[in-house]
Amino acid sequence: MLDEHIVQLIKDKNFAFLATRMKDGAPHVAPTWIDLENDLILINTAEGRIKHKNVLNDPRVSISMVDRNNPYSMVTIQGTVIELTNEGADIHIDNLAKKYLNIPKYPSHSPLRKRIIFKIKAEKVFFLPPRYTEYLDK
Amino acid sequence: MLDEHIVQLIKDKNFAFLATRMKDGAPHVAPTWIDLENDLILINTAEGRIKHKNVLNDPRVSISMVDRNNPYSMVTIQGTVIELTNEGADIHIDNLAKKYLNIPKYPSHSPLRKRIIFKIKAEKVFFLPPRYTEYLDK
Repeated sequence: MLDEHIVQLIKDKNFAFLATRMKDGAPHVAPTWIDLENDLILINTAEGRIKHKNVLNDPRVSISMVDRNNPYSMVTIQGTVIELTNEGADIHIDNLAKKYLNIPKYPSHSPLRKRIIFKIKAEKVFFLPPRYTEYLDK
Repeated sequence: MLDEHIVQLIKDKNFAFLATRMKDGAPHVAPTWIDLENDLILINTAEGRIKHKNVLNDPRVSISMVDRNNPYSMVTIQGTVIELTNEGADIHIDNLAKKYLNIPKYPSHSPLRKRIIFKIKAEKVFFLPPRYTEYLDK
């Protein structure tokens, strides 16, 4: 489901935009770090945030990313949160801080915020390879 | 509703991620260009695309953006598509090509694709000013 292009987009430090469903049915979207574990997509957030409340209510999500080197290469994934876990979530957010901020520890740990990992199974993927390369600022 | 920070994010050539609601209630999100007309947010797409079908069914949307100069400055907007129009939509996509690609004409015009503008009223805005500036690659 997640071919080499998608894996590359996720492994590079591109931001993901995670869409979830509000209780009243309206969509909600927010930027987030993203990771991969085997063929599951991992998102790490804090308990109680809107995205957490939303997936507790409806586990269906959509994720979109553009390539920071060419924003005209994009992916939209539709999938389902199949697991929520606190296990390893503090270490996992440190690993994401390494990836995205190049520092060993997540700078915003707080005893008031319990980290939680969403494990997401991709069910539908739409990918566009790079376009418009000739117009991009170098 | 849209203060100077949000206006600046939209006027700069940042990508927007537009979340809409699929017919079955699941969320969908995709990257798009974005524009402002007075206090309405404008998105330009082609008729028949998923986002068009979705807003015809449910006009509630959410939009998120990060600042290309500091992706830790972000906004999430929740709002409603209050108007759909083809009027001026071809010229409008050319204007967006100027903004984003720095070329006078949108390179993907097609007689098979009728352009349409979504006019979106923002109803709720969550903005985070730049963070983690000290960790960013220069």
